[in-house]
Amino acid sequence: MDFKLLTTDKGSKARAGELTTDHGTVQTPIFMPVGTAGTVKGVHQRELKDDVQAQIILGNTYHLYLRPGLDTIQKAGGLHKFNGWDGPILTDSGGYQVYSLSEIRKIKEEGATFKSHIDGSKHLFTPENVMDIQRIIGADIIMAFDECAPYPCDYSYARKSMDMTHRWLKRCCDQFDKTEGLYGYNQTLFPIIQGSTYKDLRVRSAETIASFEREGNAIGGLSVGEPAEEMYEMTDIVCNILPKDKPRYLMGVGTPVNLLECIALGIDMFDCVMPTRNARNGMLFTKNGIINIRNEKWKNDFSPIDASSDLYSDQVYTKAYLRHLMHAKELLGAQIASLHNLHFYLWLVKEARKKIIEGEFIQWKNKMVVELGKRL
Amino acid sequence: MDFKLLTTDKGSKARAGELTTDHGTVQTPIFMPVGTAGTVKGVHQRELKDDVQAQIILGNTYHLYLRPGLDTIQKAGGLHKFNGWDGPILTDSGGYQVYSLSEIRKIKEEGATFKSHIDGSKHLFTPENVMDIQRIIGADIIMAFDECAPYPCDYSYARKSMDMTHRWLKRCCDQFDKTEGLYGYNQTLFPIIQGSTYKDLRVRSAETIASFEREGNAIGGLSVGEPAEEMYEMTDIVCNILPKDKPRYLMGVGTPVNLLECIALGIDMFDCVMPTRNARNGMLFTKNGIINIRNEKWKNDFSPIDASSDLYSDQVYTKAYLRHLMHAKELLGAQIASLHNLHFYLWLVKEARKKIIEGEFIQWKNKMVVELGKRL
Repeated sequence: MDFKLLTTDKGSKARAGELTTDHGTVQTPIFMPVGTAGTVKGVHQRELKDDVQAQIILGNTYHLYLRPGLDTIQKAGGLHKFNGWDGPILTDSGGYQVYSLSEIRKIKEEGATFKSHIDGSKHLFTPENVMDIQRIIGADIIMAFDECAPYPCDYSYARKSMDMTHRWLKRCCDQFDKTEGLYGYNQTLFPIIQGSTYKDLRVRSAETIASFEREGNAIGGLSVGEPAEEMYEMTDIVCNILPKDKPRYLMGVGTPVNLLECIALGIDMFDCVMPTRNARNGMLFTKNGIINIRNEKWKNDFSPIDASSDLYSDQVYTKAYLRHLMHAKELLGAQIASLHNLHFYLWLVKEARKKIIEGEFIQWKNKMVVELGKRL
Repeated sequence: MDFKLLTTDKGSKARAGELTTDHGTVQTPIFMPVGTAGTVKGVHQRELKDDVQAQIILGNTYHLYLRPGLDTIQKAGGLHKFNGWDGPILTDSGGYQVYSLSEIRKIKEEGATFKSHIDGSKHLFTPENVMDIQRIIGADIIMAFDECAPYPCDYSYARKSMDMTHRWLKRCCDQFDKTEGLYGYNQTLFPIIQGSTYKDLRVRSAETIASFEREGNAIGGLSVGEPAEEMYEMTDIVCNILPKDKPRYLMGVGTPVNLLECIALGIDMFDCVMPTRNARNGMLFTKNGIINIRNEKWKNDFSPIDASSDLYSDQVYTKAYLRHLMHAKELLGAQIASLHNLHFYLWLVKEARKKIIEGEFIQWKNKMVVELGKRL
């Protein structure tokens, strides 16, 4: 993997860069659509590339490991071959899903035992086997196995959990470095900063993670329920410590406003289920604010979903039609709304990048965060 | 509307024709994808046109009347404008849905009262207001209001029901002929033959319907549970009576084998929810037989969904991937399978038409019905 930092904004810490993997180049800052089970819900791979203009997508190790399972993915020749997306892919490590999805889990030094949310079967994730699993899935960027502490979380738990995540990181790196990709292209390992909402822990974690000198760094354990201001504060603290010449990935974030605020703090990569999950509930993000398309006010609004968008489905379908599809629980409603939100997120980061390069990011960002938060 | 009969097969009663509406020309025999609530489930209008190569789609009066409702459709400028499909549309009359969906219904001479399956609200459909409703929906071809008798059905009920359907037809024609389309293009009314599985009733109904001399004729009340042989027999009887120079529409039929057998009997138009509904359950129709993609045998089959197809999604996705999506209940599974089945149905009728024109239909049909019924 190669990362070129092209520009840093004068009025903020925002950065424009270029991240190159064996499956292609990604313009940063970037948003990565989430393809949990090997599919970005409701969106064809062709639409993802041509319409959404996604540059890199995410897969979830926890989900893919349980279903379709490693045997199938390996026989397919890795996730790219399995799902037909030939651009860059990043997989998370399953740490967050063990925390959020498994009803019964036990975390100890060796690793995390958990019960599958699908069939109740019992599994063990360790730093070592999660590296092996991600070798088999074959994403371009893979994540270290961490514990994502809950919020709120008392100081003592947060510190112990963070220390274990650091020890796990050592084991991840050892395992990763003594193995190779299975499919003829390179993989890169990103470590994850933890430390809950405690400044001193975040500082220590960022310093520890930076000392591993991997090719990119991630920030985990945020956007788990804490106020946005705390998330920004923690992000700011760690960005000031992380090396400038490596990409920074803020995991699981967030709203359009969150993205812009965190780009201003120096984040290069984001992922979040919000654009697709909220789309399925009828929430549309636009440059003028948020639309709940289920509302009565759109019933007879025959204007395009987003007249200012260059996405075909934003132009050919009307608000009234999309509202109808949502009320009728039609598949096409989820499809149209997902396309819209993902296209909007990708437009937003692309526009942010343009403004960074043009030196106008901070003025634009300050104006946009007001607009983006409005309810239409 | 204009219908040109181009060729009649020598070895059967199969016909190739061309049906022209103000929204475009349809090559017959044709299959019409069902867009119940103004959307063919899981398929974008662009995909319907470019990938499936649909030429005409169907909407359901019962569903559209209840939701989004006539006010919205009229304000949109009709269904074409509302859903963004600018090709020909046919709407059924709601007679079948009153029979199949409403829990509580009362059918009398005036019309049918029923309770909405959505909110329990009470409604009355009469021959007159169903014409007015279909004027507002604005399909190119609209259907007479009929009673679809259940199967099995005793002779006395079938006869009385058929006679009422004939009286209703007179009222439909009167209402239709004294009104006009609302949106500047022409609409055409097709009457519907009933008579359950009684030959003498089907003969009488076909003669009665033919005597109205409308621009096209439909056969209803079949594919409601009777054996295929009875359906073919009834279809054959009425096709021998219906005028040759007008299109014949067999409503709600059927499997790929049903289509070919009924094309051989002289049917020009079909509609059925089977390709989309069965797709959502993982059943794929192919020229080599039927695939249940959920089966274990496809788990590690990384061949394209249909290597012989020119549909992009049949080529880029594998059987193993589609199987995974179905098991994970992913939206994309329903989308891919629906595209496949609809594309296959449209391929099948196009191929049938080619064979009719080339004079090779019956040999091809006899070979195909063996293949199509196989379980892969």
